[in-house]
Amino acid sequence: MNARIILTQLGVLLMVLSGSILAIACWSGIQALMGAPGESLAFRALGYSAFTGAVLGLGLWLGSKKPTGAVGRKEALLLVAVSWLLAGALCALPYRLWAEFAAGQGDHDPAFGSYVNCYFEAMSGLTTTGATVLTDIASLPRSMLLWRSLTHWLGGLGIVVLFVAVLPMLGVGGKRLFKVEAPGPTSEGVKPRIQETARALWIIYLGLTFAEILLLWVFGLDLFESVCHTFATLATGGFSTRGGSVGEINSLSVDVVLIVFMVLAGINFGLYYAIWRGHWRNVWKDPELRAYLGFMAIASAVIVGFLWDDIIVTSAGQQAEPSFGSALRHGVFQVVSIQTTTGYCTANFDLWPFVPKAILLGLMFVGGCGGSTGGGIKVARIVIMAKVLWAEIERVFRPNVVRPIRMGKTTIDPELRQGVTVYVLIILIIFALGTFGLMVLERSAGLDITTAATACVATLNNIGPGLARVGAIENFGWFSDGSKILMSLLMALGRLEVYALLVLFVPTFWRGE
Amino acid sequence: MNARIILTQLGVLLMVLSGSILAIACWSGIQALMGAPGESLAFRALGYSAFTGAVLGLGLWLGSKKPTGAVGRKEALLLVAVSWLLAGALCALPYRLWAEFAAGQGDHDPAFGSYVNCYFEAMSGLTTTGATVLTDIASLPRSMLLWRSLTHWLGGLGIVVLFVAVLPMLGVGGKRLFKVEAPGPTSEGVKPRIQETARALWIIYLGLTFAEILLLWVFGLDLFESVCHTFATLATGGFSTRGGSVGEINSLSVDVVLIVFMVLAGINFGLYYAIWRGHWRNVWKDPELRAYLGFMAIASAVIVGFLWDDIIVTSAGQQAEPSFGSALRHGVFQVVSIQTTTGYCTANFDLWPFVPKAILLGLMFVGGCGGSTGGGIKVARIVIMAKVLWAEIERVFRPNVVRPIRMGKTTIDPELRQGVTVYVLIILIIFALGTFGLMVLERSAGLDITTAATACVATLNNIGPGLARVGAIENFGWFSDGSKILMSLLMALGRLEVYALLVLFVPTFWRGE
Repeated sequence: MNARIILTQLGVLLMVLSGSILAIACWSGIQALMGAPGESLAFRALGYSAFTGAVLGLGLWLGSKKPTGAVGRKEALLLVAVSWLLAGALCALPYRLWAEFAAGQGDHDPAFGSYVNCYFEAMSGLTTTGATVLTDIASLPRSMLLWRSLTHWLGGLGIVVLFVAVLPMLGVGGKRLFKVEAPGPTSEGVKPRIQETARALWIIYLGLTFAEILLLWVFGLDLFESVCHTFATLATGGFSTRGGSVGEINSLSVDVVLIVFMVLAGINFGLYYAIWRGHWRNVWKDPELRAYLGFMAIASAVIVGFLWDDIIVTSAGQQAEPSFGSALRHGVFQVVSIQTTTGYCTANFDLWPFVPKAILLGLMFVGGCGGSTGGGIKVARIVIMAKVLWAEIERVFRPNVVRPIRMGKTTIDPELRQGVTVYVLIILIIFALGTFGLMVLERSAGLDITTAATACVATLNNIGPGLARVGAIENFGWFSDGSKILMSLLMALGRLEVYALLVLFVPTFWRGE
Repeated sequence: MNARIILTQLGVLLMVLSGSILAIACWSGIQALMGAPGESLAFRALGYSAFTGAVLGLGLWLGSKKPTGAVGRKEALLLVAVSWLLAGALCALPYRLWAEFAAGQGDHDPAFGSYVNCYFEAMSGLTTTGATVLTDIASLPRSMLLWRSLTHWLGGLGIVVLFVAVLPMLGVGGKRLFKVEAPGPTSEGVKPRIQETARALWIIYLGLTFAEILLLWVFGLDLFESVCHTFATLATGGFSTRGGSVGEINSLSVDVVLIVFMVLAGINFGLYYAIWRGHWRNVWKDPELRAYLGFMAIASAVIVGFLWDDIIVTSAGQQAEPSFGSALRHGVFQVVSIQTTTGYCTANFDLWPFVPKAILLGLMFVGGCGGSTGGGIKVARIVIMAKVLWAEIERVFRPNVVRPIRMGKTTIDPELRQGVTVYVLIILIIFALGTFGLMVLERSAGLDITTAATACVATLNNIGPGLARVGAIENFGWFSDGSKILMSLLMALGRLEVYALLVLFVPTFWRGE
C-alpha cells in the first residue's frame, strides 16, 4: 500500500473543498455587507472552515510530498473510500461552526447542535441523497443553504471525477480511480482517455447547470433559489431551500423544468459525451435509456390512474381538488423525483394509496442509469438481472441451449452476469442488515418497521425521503446519533456502489500485494 | 410434449392418494364402530373421497393407456407442477365433504366451509408448510387430524420420490423427475441409480418414522398423537393435534424428542444413504451439515441470551417464570422448529423482543439442508452464496487472482455459482411480489406490513407461522380467498424450488422441442 500518494491526494481534496467553502464565504461576506440577516455569523463559520480545511490539506500535501510510484488498485479504492468519509467531515464544519456561533449569541439551533447531525447533513449532500436533519430549513442563512446545495453539486458527478478533470496530476492512477468512481456497470462511450473524458463531462455538467439556472430564473424563481435547486437537481440530490420542498414553490413551469432536468441528470453522462462527439445514433439506440424512460412512463401511468380521483395534499400542506391535471403533475413529478433518486417532493406521497407507494418504493431500488448522478441499483443492472433470471429459468428445460444475453449490441459475458446478480444481492443484504440495525438502535423509541426499512432504502439508494416517519414532509433529525452514523455509512455505501467500502473489511486487502 | 404419459402418471398419483385416503377411511370406520365422536361423518367423507379419487385416477390411467416414448425434461417439469396442484385438490376433498356432511346435521364448520380453505389446508399439508385455516383444531374428528398429518408425511419426502420408489414404471423419466423433485442444490451421495436410491430413502424415512413414534409413545404421548406428530416432524410440516401446538403438550421429554427428530429431518437424506452404505466419513465432513448445526447453535445461543430474564408465554398461553432452563428449552425448540421449517411452537415467539424475532425471520429464509424435507433457501445455497459474495468483493482489488470456491472437497463451478445467486434473487423477488400481492388483496382489511411480509415468508419457505396476525398462536383462516389462493401458490413455489412452476410461464416451454 502506497500511503503517501493517498495522503497527497487527500490533501488536494481538502484544499479543493476549502476553495469551494471559500467561494461561498466570499458570497456570504458580500451578503453580510449588504445587511442580509444571519450572514455575518455564516461568513465567520465558512471562513474558519475554509481556513481549517486549507491548512489541513496543505499540511497533508506538503507532509507527503514527492510521492513515488503509481496509484494501484488498492490505493485507488482506499482513496475513494477515505475521500468521501473525510470530505463529509470537512463539509460538516461550516454547519457546526455556524450553530456554535449562533449559540454564542443565544440562538440555539438543535439541528446543527451536534457534529453527528452536521456530518449526516454533509454526507447527505455529498452523496446526493438529500435527507436532512433540519426541521426549519427556511430559517437558515442563505449562504448555509447555498453551501448545502453546493455539496450536492460537488458530489454530483463525483468529486473524484472532478479531481481527475481539474487536477490532472493523478496520472496513471486516474483511470483506475474513474473505474471505481463512475457509477454503473456500463460506461459505454466513456473511453479510456480519462482526462479528456473527465474534462468533457465537467463541461457538459457545467453546461446543464447554466441551462437549468437560466430556465428556472426565466420561469420566475429568483436567482438564488434557481442556483440552489439546479445544484440539487443535476446531482439528483434533493435539498431544497424551502421546508415544504418544491411543492412550496407551487409553480407548474418550475415543476416542468425540474422534471426535465431530473430526467436528464439520471441519464448516463457517457451518452452526452457521445452526443458531444456527434454519435447521436448511440443515444437513440441505448437500451438502458429506453428502459429508464420506459420504467418512468409505466410507473407514471399507473400512479396517475390511482391518483386521478383522489385529493392530493402537496408537500406544503395544501389540498388540490381531484383532477387529471393535478394527478398528472404530481404523479409524474414524484415518479421522476424518486426514480432518479432526487427526492424532491411536490406532494406528500406518504398519504397516497398503497399501490402508488409500493411502486415508488420499487423505483427507489431501480434508480437512475449507470454513469449518471442518480443512485439506486441502476437501470442497466436491473435490465441485465431480469435477462439473467429469465435465461436461468429457460435453462431448466433447455439445459443445452446457450443463448447469449445482450444489452443492445453488447453481449453480457458470464463475469458481468455474475457481477450484476451479486451486486443486487449485496444491496438487498445491506438493506436487510441496515433495517435490522436501525430497529436495534431505535429499539427504545419503538421504531416501526416501515420507517426503519424506508429510511434504510432512502439512504442506501441516495433518495432522501422514505415513508411514514421519514416520509415526504418529515426529516431525519429525530433519529439517535447511532442511527445517523449508520445511515451516513449507508449513504456512502450506496454512492460508492458498495465495493470501495466493503473491501476495507476483507483482511487480504490489508496484506502485501 | 407427450401429454399421454403425463396423464397416465397423474392417474397413478390419484390412485395412490386415494389408497392413502382409503387407509384413513378404514381406520375411521373402526373408530366409528367403536363409537368415537364424529367419526361416522368422517368415515363417509373419507370413503367418498377415496372413491372419487380412485375413479378419476383409473379413468386417467385407462384413458391414456399405453403411452409411448420417454418422460422428457419438459414432461417431468409439467408433471411435477401439475401433480402438486392436483394432489392438493384431491387431498382437500375429505375436509370439504366432512364439513358438508356436518353442515347437513346442522353443525356448520366455518373453516372447511369453502373449497378454497380446504385446498389451502391440503397444500399446506402436502408442501409440509403447516399453516392452518383452523381455529379450533381439537374439535375435529381424529381421522381428519390423522389425514392432515398424513398429507405432511406424504408430501415430506416428495410424493413423486415415493412414486419413483413404489412404482418403478416411470423408467427412464425417473431420473429427471428426481432431479427436479429432490430439494437442494447438492445431492452428493444420492447416486444416479434412482430406483435403488429412492427405495433406500423410503426405507430410511420409514425407519425414522417408526423410531420417532416409539420414542414419543414411550415418553407418554398416546399412540394417535405420537403418529400425528411424527408425520409432521419428519416432513418438517408442523400440523399439530392441539390448538396450542406442542406447547399444549407441555412435556420436556416430548420437546426433546421433537427437537432431535426435527434436526434429523432437516438433514440431507443423501447423508443417511451414505451411512446406509457405510460411508460415515462423508457425514462428519459434510460442510452443509456443519453449517446447518452451526447456524442453529449460534442462533440458539443469542436467543437464549435474550430470553434468559424474560417471562416466556407458551403457545398454550401459560407463563413460565424467567429461568435459564426455560429460555434454553423454548429458545432451542423455536430455533430448530423455524430453521428446519417445521413450524411447531412451544412458545408464543411473537411476544419476544425484536432481535430474537429478527433472527427467527432470518432463519426462515435459510431453511434446512438440501435433500432434506425442510424448506427455505437451503443451507448449502446460503453457504455458497456467502462464498460467492466474498469472492466477488475480493475480486475488486484482485481481479487477476482466480480462487476456486469450494464446498467441502467439491469445487463449485461458475454455472452453479450463477445458479445459486439467481435462485436466491428469485426467492427474494417472489417474496417482495407475494407481500405486495397480499397487501393489495387485503387492502380493504388494512393489513399491516409485518403480517403480510411474514405470511409470505412463512408460506413461501414452507414454515407455517409468521409474526403478528399470522404469529405462533394465530391462524390463516381470516384471509380472503384470493390471498389463500396466492399463498397456496407460494407454498407450491417454495416446495418445488420455484422452477417447476415458473417454467410454465415461459412461452418457449410450450413450443415444440
